[in-house]
Amino acid sequence: MLKKKKKNGGSSEPCVKKIQFADQKQEFNKRPSKIGRRSLSRSISQSSTDSYSSAASYTDSSDDETSPRDKQQKNSKGNGDFCIKNIKQADFGRREIEIAEQEMPALMALRKRAQGEKPLAGAKVVGCTHITAQTAVLMETLSALGAQCRWAACNIYSTQNEVAAALAEGGFSVFAWKGESEDDFWWCIDRCVNVEGWQPNMILDDGGDLTHWIYKKYPNMFKKIKGIVEESVTGVHRLYQLSKAGKLCVPAMNVNDSVTKQKFDNLYCCRESILDGLKRTTDVMFGGKQVVVCGYGEVGKGCCAALKAMGSIVYVTEIDPICALQACMDGFRLVKLNEVIRQVDIVITCTGNKNVVVREYLDRMKNGCIVCNMGHSNTEIDVASLRTPELTWERVRSQVDHVIWPDGKRIVLLAEGRLLNLSCSTVPTFVLSITATTQALALIELYNAPEGRYKQDVYLLPKKMDEYVASLHLPTFDAHLTELSDEQAKYLGLNKNGPFKPNYYRY
Amino acid sequence: MLKKKKKNGGSSEPCVKKIQFADQKQEFNKRPSKIGRRSLSRSISQSSTDSYSSAASYTDSSDDETSPRDKQQKNSKGNGDFCIKNIKQADFGRREIEIAEQEMPALMALRKRAQGEKPLAGAKVVGCTHITAQTAVLMETLSALGAQCRWAACNIYSTQNEVAAALAEGGFSVFAWKGESEDDFWWCIDRCVNVEGWQPNMILDDGGDLTHWIYKKYPNMFKKIKGIVEESVTGVHRLYQLSKAGKLCVPAMNVNDSVTKQKFDNLYCCRESILDGLKRTTDVMFGGKQVVVCGYGEVGKGCCAALKAMGSIVYVTEIDPICALQACMDGFRLVKLNEVIRQVDIVITCTGNKNVVVREYLDRMKNGCIVCNMGHSNTEIDVASLRTPELTWERVRSQVDHVIWPDGKRIVLLAEGRLLNLSCSTVPTFVLSITATTQALALIELYNAPEGRYKQDVYLLPKKMDEYVASLHLPTFDAHLTELSDEQAKYLGLNKNGPFKPNYYRY
Amino acid sequence: MLKKKKKNGGSSEPCVKKIQFADQKQEFNKRPSKIGRRSLSRSISQSSTDSYSSAASYTDSSDDETSPRDKQQKNSKGNGDFCIKNIKQADFGRREIEIAEQEMPALMALRKRAQGEKPLAGAKVVGCTHITAQTAVLMETLSALGAQCRWAACNIYSTQNEVAAALAEGGFSVFAWKGESEDDFWWCIDRCVNVEGWQPNMILDDGGDLTHWIYKKYPNMFKKIKGIVEESVTGVHRLYQLSKAGKLCVPAMNVNDSVTKQKFDNLYCCRESILDGLKRTTDVMFGGKQVVVCGYGEVGKGCCAALKAMGSIVYVTEIDPICALQACMDGFRLVKLNEVIRQVDIVITCTGNKNVVVREYLDRMKNGCIVCNMGHSNTEIDVASLRTPELTWERVRSQVDHVIWPDGKRIVLLAEGRLLNLSCSTVPTFVLSITATTQALALIELYNAPEGRYKQDVYLLPKKMDEYVASLHLPTFDAHLTELSDEQAKYLGLNKNGPFKPNYYRY
Amino acid sequence: MLKKKKKNGGSSEPCVKKIQFADQKQEFNKRPSKIGRRSLSRSISQSSTDSYSSAASYTDSSDDETSPRDKQQKNSKGNGDFCIKNIKQADFGRREIEIAEQEMPALMALRKRAQGEKPLAGAKVVGCTHITAQTAVLMETLSALGAQCRWAACNIYSTQNEVAAALAEGGFSVFAWKGESEDDFWWCIDRCVNVEGWQPNMILDDGGDLTHWIYKKYPNMFKKIKGIVEESVTGVHRLYQLSKAGKLCVPAMNVNDSVTKQKFDNLYCCRESILDGLKRTTDVMFGGKQVVVCGYGEVGKGCCAALKAMGSIVYVTEIDPICALQACMDGFRLVKLNEVIRQVDIVITCTGNKNVVVREYLDRMKNGCIVCNMGHSNTEIDVASLRTPELTWERVRSQVDHVIWPDGKRIVLLAEGRLLNLSCSTVPTFVLSITATTQALALIELYNAPEGRYKQDVYLLPKKMDEYVASLHLPTFDAHLTELSDEQAKYLGLNKNGPFKPNYYRY
Repeated sequence: MLKKKKKNGGSSEPCVKKIQFADQKQEFNKRPSKIGRRSLSRSISQSSTDSYSSAASYTDSSDDETSPRDKQQKNSKGNGDFCIKNIKQADFGRREIEIAEQEMPALMALRKRAQGEKPLAGAKVVGCTHITAQTAVLMETLSALGAQCRWAACNIYSTQNEVAAALAEGGFSVFAWKGESEDDFWWCIDRCVNVEGWQPNMILDDGGDLTHWIYKKYPNMFKKIKGIVEESVTGVHRLYQLSKAGKLCVPAMNVNDSVTKQKFDNLYCCRESILDGLKRTTDVMFGGKQVVVCGYGEVGKGCCAALKAMGSIVYVTEIDPICALQACMDGFRLVKLNEVIRQVDIVITCTGNKNVVVREYLDRMKNGCIVCNMGHSNTEIDVASLRTPELTWERVRSQVDHVIWPDGKRIVLLAEGRLLNLSCSTVPTFVLSITATTQALALIELYNAPEGRYKQDVYLLPKKMDEYVASLHLPTFDAHLTELSDEQAKYLGLNKNGPFKPNYYRY
Repeated sequence: MLKKKKKNGGSSEPCVKKIQFADQKQEFNKRPSKIGRRSLSRSISQSSTDSYSSAASYTDSSDDETSPRDKQQKNSKGNGDFCIKNIKQADFGRREIEIAEQEMPALMALRKRAQGEKPLAGAKVVGCTHITAQTAVLMETLSALGAQCRWAACNIYSTQNEVAAALAEGGFSVFAWKGESEDDFWWCIDRCVNVEGWQPNMILDDGGDLTHWIYKKYPNMFKKIKGIVEESVTGVHRLYQLSKAGKLCVPAMNVNDSVTKQKFDNLYCCRESILDGLKRTTDVMFGGKQVVVCGYGEVGKGCCAALKAMGSIVYVTEIDPICALQACMDGFRLVKLNEVIRQVDIVITCTGNKNVVVREYLDRMKNGCIVCNMGHSNTEIDVASLRTPELTWERVRSQVDHVIWPDGKRIVLLAEGRLLNLSCSTVPTFVLSITATTQALALIELYNAPEGRYKQDVYLLPKKMDEYVASLHLPTFDAHLTELSDEQAKYLGLNKNGPFKPNYYRY
Repeated sequence: MLKKKKKNGGSSEPCVKKIQFADQKQEFNKRPSKIGRRSLSRSISQSSTDSYSSAASYTDSSDDETSPRDKQQKNSKGNGDFCIKNIKQADFGRREIEIAEQEMPALMALRKRAQGEKPLAGAKVVGCTHITAQTAVLMETLSALGAQCRWAACNIYSTQNEVAAALAEGGFSVFAWKGESEDDFWWCIDRCVNVEGWQPNMILDDGGDLTHWIYKKYPNMFKKIKGIVEESVTGVHRLYQLSKAGKLCVPAMNVNDSVTKQKFDNLYCCRESILDGLKRTTDVMFGGKQVVVCGYGEVGKGCCAALKAMGSIVYVTEIDPICALQACMDGFRLVKLNEVIRQVDIVITCTGNKNVVVREYLDRMKNGCIVCNMGHSNTEIDVASLRTPELTWERVRSQVDHVIWPDGKRIVLLAEGRLLNLSCSTVPTFVLSITATTQALALIELYNAPEGRYKQDVYLLPKKMDEYVASLHLPTFDAHLTELSDEQAKYLGLNKNGPFKPNYYRY
Repeated sequence: MLKKKKKNGGSSEPCVKKIQFADQKQEFNKRPSKIGRRSLSRSISQSSTDSYSSAASYTDSSDDETSPRDKQQKNSKGNGDFCIKNIKQADFGRREIEIAEQEMPALMALRKRAQGEKPLAGAKVVGCTHITAQTAVLMETLSALGAQCRWAACNIYSTQNEVAAALAEGGFSVFAWKGESEDDFWWCIDRCVNVEGWQPNMILDDGGDLTHWIYKKYPNMFKKIKGIVEESVTGVHRLYQLSKAGKLCVPAMNVNDSVTKQKFDNLYCCRESILDGLKRTTDVMFGGKQVVVCGYGEVGKGCCAALKAMGSIVYVTEIDPICALQACMDGFRLVKLNEVIRQVDIVITCTGNKNVVVREYLDRMKNGCIVCNMGHSNTEIDVASLRTPELTWERVRSQVDHVIWPDGKRIVLLAEGRLLNLSCSTVPTFVLSITATTQALALIELYNAPEGRYKQDVYLLPKKMDEYVASLHLPTFDAHLTELSDEQAKYLGLNKNGPFKPNYYRY
C-alpha cells in the first residue's frame, strides 16, 4: 500500500505518480449532471444573494463580449494579477460584500479574534469555489488571518462578476467570470497554481477539480501542501477513493460531514426551501394537499415537518426500517409509493437513490400532480422515461414543465427533476455562513496541527471545532450558552470548553 | 326613513336621487391607496395564475400602442360588442381558462348540476371585477346557468388581455384591458350598462364602482335590478353606508363576510403567504428568528402559526383582551411593541389599524430588521415618517427597500408598507375558487329568492349556501362528508341538509 | 304571547303559574345521564383540586354516619344557619380555599377593585353549583363585593365537605354535603330559598334545578328577582325553552356561551384533557397511532391538534361542510367512519350527536381499539348495544372496561361512554377561574343594569364584560395588552376600552 | 494488559481474579439513588402494565407474611425449582402475560420465525431484570427459540408476583418476589447461578448486579459463558470500566445505546411522559405557561416539542453549542437559567449533570413554580439544599411536595427531584417491546456469532440487527417498507437487506 511504502521506503518519488485519473474530458462533459452536487448550492443561492444586485446582473449584458482572457486590466493600485470580467464593477461588488458581511457575523468574529494572533500567517491558500459575496467574506477573512489567497471558480456559471471585481480591486488574485468555457475553466485553475515564485501550501476545494488538476499537472506541489479542505459530496467522495487507493498524499478535511453543516444544509435548509421552491414555481396551496415524500433522512424530515405544519397530509416511503419507524412516530403514514400514487397531489423525492419515481408511477399519477426532487442527484425521477413521443412537454414557466398525456392528463414537473431547492429556491446566507466558517476553521486546524496529528487520510472536522462553528453563530440568535462549573465538568468528565459529546452522539 | 317611505308611498320616484355621492374624482384619485383592499388580491394573484402564460405577457409589449377604444375588432362569428386589447390572443387565453377550470372544480360542478335547470335563466348580469382566467371560469359558469353577462374591469391594471380576448371570442361583451386610463375605466363600465335593448337585472361588483356608477348615472335602472352581490371590504362598507342612510334600493349580498371566504382569505391564505412573501423578497431564514406580529385576528393567527412552525420565536401585540388570551394559550408571549422592538428580526403588522409601527419604533429597530404589512390597509406602518432627509432609501430589489440611518443601520422595508401578501406573494387559485363560487351562489340566491325574503338591506350569504360553497370544495381534498341519519337529525333538531350551525357559531 | 300579555295586561298574577314542569321525579331519575352536562366538570375536577387534600377525603369515611340533617352544628361564632357534614373540617377547608385563591387571581383582582365601591351591595344571591374550593373563592368574592349568599349543591356527589365547612365557619349559609339523597338535594335547595326574613334577588344556577324549584314552589319570589345567571348547557336550554314559551319572567344571562368560557371549556381544555384522559386510563403511546375523531367543532379541533402534535395520524368525520373544510385545511383526512374503522387504534367522539359509534362499527374495530367520548352527552357511543350476552365485559381498571368478543377481540371502552375529560381527567383551576369570573361579572351586570336594558329574555354576556373576563386573566401569563391611542380609536371607530369586535366576530 | 496476557499465555487462570470489586455492601446501600438508572423504568412502568391487574396487586396484601424462602411450593407438574410469592396466582399472571403478548408483536413474530430453526438451542440464559408481564413475554420467547432460562429480579420492589407465579407454573426457574430484603436479593441471584448440573452460557443483565455476582463468586463460570447482554446505563458503565481495566473476559453487548432503543427511551417516550407526569401530579394547564428546559439532548428535545405543541412558551439552557444551535433553529430562546428563573412557571432538568438547579435559583423562583427532573440522575436539582429549617415541606399528594419559604412562597417539587417520567408517569409497553426485542436479538447474535467476531470487549448491537428490531415493530403501525431493487442497491452500494446507513449516521 502506498502509504506504507512511502513510510518505509522514504522514497522521494512523489506519491501521486501512480494515480490514474478518470478521463478529464469525459468528467467535464458530465458536468450538467453535476448540478446534483450540493456544492452547487452556492451558484444557485447566488440568485438569492445577488438579489441586492440585480442591477449589476443586467448591466452585465451590456458589457462587451471580449473574453476576459483577452483583456488586460489593472486595479487602482496597478496590480494586474487577476482575470475577471470588468474591474469597473468593483464598487458595486464591494457593496455586495459589505451587505454579506452583515449576515456573516461568525467570520467577522473570527477576524476580530485574530487581530493579535494570525493563525494563517504564512499560509498560501489556493481556492476553487463558487465566487460570490459570501465567498469574498471568507477570502477576506482568510487574508485577515494572515493567509495569501489565489482563487478560481468551481462552476462556470456561478461567478458574481462584480464581486470578483471587488476582490481583484482589493488585491486578490482572482481568475473567474460568469460564463466561462470549459477551456477557460481549467485555464483559470491553472493560473491560480502555476505561478512563479508562489506555491500554495493549503487547498480549499469545492468539487475536487482543483485537487484533481494539481494531482494531474503538478504532483510535486503536494510536497509543500499541508492539507486539503473539501466541502462537496463529490469532492469528498473523490478524496475517500484516493485514500482507499492509498494515493492521498496529504491530510484532507471533509467539512461536508461536519455536524453543524449537515444539519443546516439538509434539515434546516430544506425545511424552508421545500415550501419556497414549490410556491415560487407553482403557487400551490399547501393546506389539505396530499403529499408523498420519498425518503425520511434529514432532507425528508425537513420536508415532511414543513408540509405537515402547513396543513398537508404527508405520506412517507422508506427503505430503512429505523428511519421508517421515525416517520411513524413523527405522525406520518409509511407506505409504498404504489399505495398512494393515484391520490397524491405532490410527489417529492429525497432519497439519494435512482429511479425512485419511474414511468409506471408517473403514468398513474392524477391530473395536475406536481413532481419534484429534493435529493442529491438528478436521477431520482426517471425523467428520461418521459421523453417519449406520445407525451407532450410544455414549458409553462421557468423551471416548470407540463408533461401532457394523450388523454390530457398533465404532470407538473419541476426543474426537470434536478434539485428543487437549488434550482427554484435560494440558500440563505446563514447556511452559507455556517459552511464558510467551517472551511476557515478547517484551514486553521490543518495549517496549525502539530506534526503527526493528521496522516494522509480524510478526516472529519474535530468535534471541538464543529462546536466552535456553532458557538460563533449563536450571537445571531442572541442565544446565551451556559458554562459548566468546575464541579460539573468534573462530574461529567468533560473539559469545560468541550468537546461535549462523544463522537457517536447522534444530535 | 327612505325604505318606509317607499313602501308607504309607493312613490315612483327612484330612491337613489337622494344619495350624495362622494366626489367621484377624489375617490378615483385615492386609487393608489386602494391597493389595500383585499379585492385587489385578484389583480395580483394574476401574477400567479398567469405564470403559465408568461409568454403572452411579454408578447403584449410588442403590441401596437393604439388604444382599444380606437380599434374596431370582431370575433370569429362577426360579433363586435366588446372592447379589448387584441382578439387574436383568444386562443392563448382559452388555454389559460382551461387550466384554471381544472383548479376550480366547484364551479365546474355547478355547471353540471345546472344542466337540467337553469337557475339564472333570464338573468342579465353586469359585472365589474378583475378580469382573469378565474373570472372567466365564473362568467362562463354564469352563462351555463342561463345568465347573459356584460363585464368591465374593477382595476385598471389587473386585466389579463388574452383572457379578455378569449371571452370576447366566446361571445361575452367584455370591456377591459390592461393599463386603462381613468377615463377608460369609467367608459368601460358605462359600455356595460348603457346599451340599447339590454338592461341588467343583477349586479356583481368588486369595490362598488359599478354600483356607484349606476346610482349616479342610471338610478332608474334599479327598478329592474333584483340585487347586488359585492365582495370587497370597500364595496361592502359603501353598501352598509347606503343602507344606514336608507338609500339602498335593492337587496345586496355581502359575500366578503361569508364564513368560508373569510377563513380562506385570511387565516389559510395568510398562513402560507407570509412565508412566501418574506422568502421571495428577502430569502430570510425563518429558523430562530425573533418576530413580532402586531394583531392576533385571523391574519395574525395565520402568520403566527406559520412562523412558529418554521422555528421562529414569535411575539404578539394585541389590543383586544380576548384575542390576547388566545395568543397566550397558543404559546405566544403577549407584549407591547416597545418591549421587543430592539431585539426582533422581523416586524409584521396585521391590525387593520393605522400607525402601529411609527418612526419611534423604526428608530429603535436593529440593523437588518425586516418590516412588512399583512393587514388590510397601507397605513399600519408609518412609511411617510421615513421619507425624511436624514434617511437614505435604496431600492435593492423589486418591492424591497433598504432605509438607511445615518449610522449605517438598515431597515428592510417591504412593498413600501403595502400588503405583502398581495404585492410579493400570490393568491392561490383555490382561494379564488372559493370566492367565485360564493359569488355565483349569491347571484342565484338573490335572483331566485321569493318576493319578500330580502328587503332593501345588506345580507350575509345564508349559512346553508355558505355550507354549500364549502361542500363543493371538499372533492378537491377527496374528503367524504358524513350524513345525518333521520334519527340523528331529529335528535339535534336539524335539517339533514343543513344549515348545521346557529348563526352565532364561531367556527 | 306571554310577554306581551303581561305587558299589556299588567296582570299581577305571576307569569310562572302557567309553566308546566316536567315530572320532577322523572327528571331526577334521569340524573345519571346528566353526567353529560359540562357543568358537572366541577364535581370531577374536584378530584384534581382536592388533590392537595386527599387526606381529608379519606378521613371523611371515618366520620359518623349520622345524616347532617339530623345534626345541630354551630360555627365558632355561634351561627347555625347551615347544614354540612362536619364543621370541624373548617380549618382544612380554609387551606384548600387559600390554595385555590392563588390560582384564581382574576377573582382576587375583582375583590381588590371592589374595595371602594360595592357593586353587589344589597344583592341577595341564592346559588346552586358544585361546592368546591373554587366556588368558595367565588362566593367569598361575591361577599366582598357586597352580596349576601345562600348556597346549595347542584350535584349530590360533588361537594367538598371540608370546603363547605370552611364556608359555614366563615358565615355562609351553606346546605350541602357529599352523598346527598334525592330528598336531601331538594331539601337543601329549599333551605336556601325558603327562609324567614330573607328573600333572594339574584339567582346563580348551574343546571337549572334551583330555578326550577323556585318556579315550582315560590313563583312569587320572581317579583323581587333581578335576574338569573346560568352556566350549564342544560340550564341554558331550559331557559331558552321558558323564553320561547313566554314563561321567563326575569332576565337571564347565558354565561355558558360567552366567548372566553367557550374557548376554555372546549378548545383549550380538551386539547390537554384528551391526552391526559387517554394516558391515565390506558397508558397508550400516541406516536404513530391512527385515530379517528368524530366531529370537528371546538372540542374536536382541540383533540385533533393535540394528537397530531404528539405524532398520531388523525382522521376526522364531520357532517358540516364548513367544519369539514377546516379539517382539510388543518391537515386531516376527512373520512366517513366506515372507511377507517377497521384500521384505527383510537376512536374519539366529539359531536354532541347520538349513536355516532354504533354496534356495527364496534364489531368491525380491531383488537385493542380504544373507544371514548369527549362530546357533551353520553349517547355518542351506543354503549347499550354492547350489553348483549355474547360479549363479555371485564373491568380492568377504574373507568376502563374491556369488552370482549367471542373471538377474543377486545375493545377498550373508557368511562362507559361518558365524558372522558370529566371522568378520567381534571379541569384545571384556570378554566374554573374563567367560569367563576364570568359568573361574578354576569351577576354584577344584571344587578346593576339600568331599568330596561334587559327584558324577560335570555342574554349573552355583553362583549365588553367578556373582554373584561379575558383581561383579568392576562396577568397570569405576564401578558401586556396594547392600548389604542385616541387617534387609532377614532380611525377604527372604537371606544378605547372596548368592545373591540362586532358581535358576529368569530375569534 | 489483561487481554493480551490471556491471549499470549493461554493461562487457565481465570482473568477475573484481579478484579477489585467495589464494596458490595456500600453499592447496595446506595440503591435508593439507583432509582435514577433508566433501567428502573421497567419497575415503574409496571404500574402501567399492571393497570389491568390492580385487583391482583391488592389481593397480595392479604397474603400471608411468610417469606417465600420459607415456603416449599410446587407447580402443577410437581416442579419446585423456583422461589416466588404464591404459585396460586399463576392463572392471574397468565392473563397478564397474554395481554402483554398482544402489545409485543415483535417478540411474537420472533417466535414464529423461529419455529423451524431454534437459534438459541443449547443456550442457558441466566437473567436478572425486572420481572413483569413484558419480561415474561421475553423469557417465553427465549424459551421458544430454544433457550433454557433461570431468572432473578434486578430490583427488590419491581416484581409482579402473579407474573412470577405464571412463569413458575410454566416451568421457569424464577427466584423473585415483591419486597425482597437485601439478603433475599443476592440469595435469589445466587439460586439462579449456583445450581447443580446446570451452568449458564449467556447472561442477560439489567444493572450489572448479576454480572457482578458471578465475577465475585464464580469467576470460573466465565469460561463457558459466550457473552453478556446489558441494557442499563449503570450496567454498561460498569462493563466499559471492566473493559478499560482489561478485566472483561467475555464479549458484552451494550444494548442501551442501540439507535432504536435510545430514540424510544429518550425522545419518543419523554415527549409523552413529560405531559403525563406533569398532569398526573399537578393538573397544571400547559397553554401559555412559561417553561425552562435545561438541556437539549434527546430528552430535552422531546420535552420541548411536546410543551411547545401544547401552547407553552419554552426556554432552553444548554452547554453544548451544537445542541444550542438546534434549540434556536427549533424555535426556542436559548438562555441562561438566571435570565428567566424569576418568570417561569415550570423548570425541567434533562441534562444528566449535577446541581443544575441550585438553591440560589430555587430562592428566586416565583410562587407556585413547579420543579421537576427528567434527566438520568437525581442530582440535577439540589434537593438537599431545600432541607433547611427555614423551609417547610408539605406533602400534598403522592410524589408532590410543597416547599414553603418563610414569606409563604411555595415551590412545587415533584418526586423529590427523582425522575418524573419514572416516578409519576408510565413507560408504554411499546417502548418495553423495543427493549425486549433488542435484548433477544443481542442474545441470538452473541450466541451464534462465529468465533472471533467478538472479542473481550463491549459492543454496540450491529446496525443490521438494530434495523431488524425496528422492522419488527413496523407492523404495529401498519407501515409498509419499500424494498430496494437490485439496480438501486447496486447504485447505492448497499446490500438489499441492509445495513442501510454508515455507523456514523446520526438519524
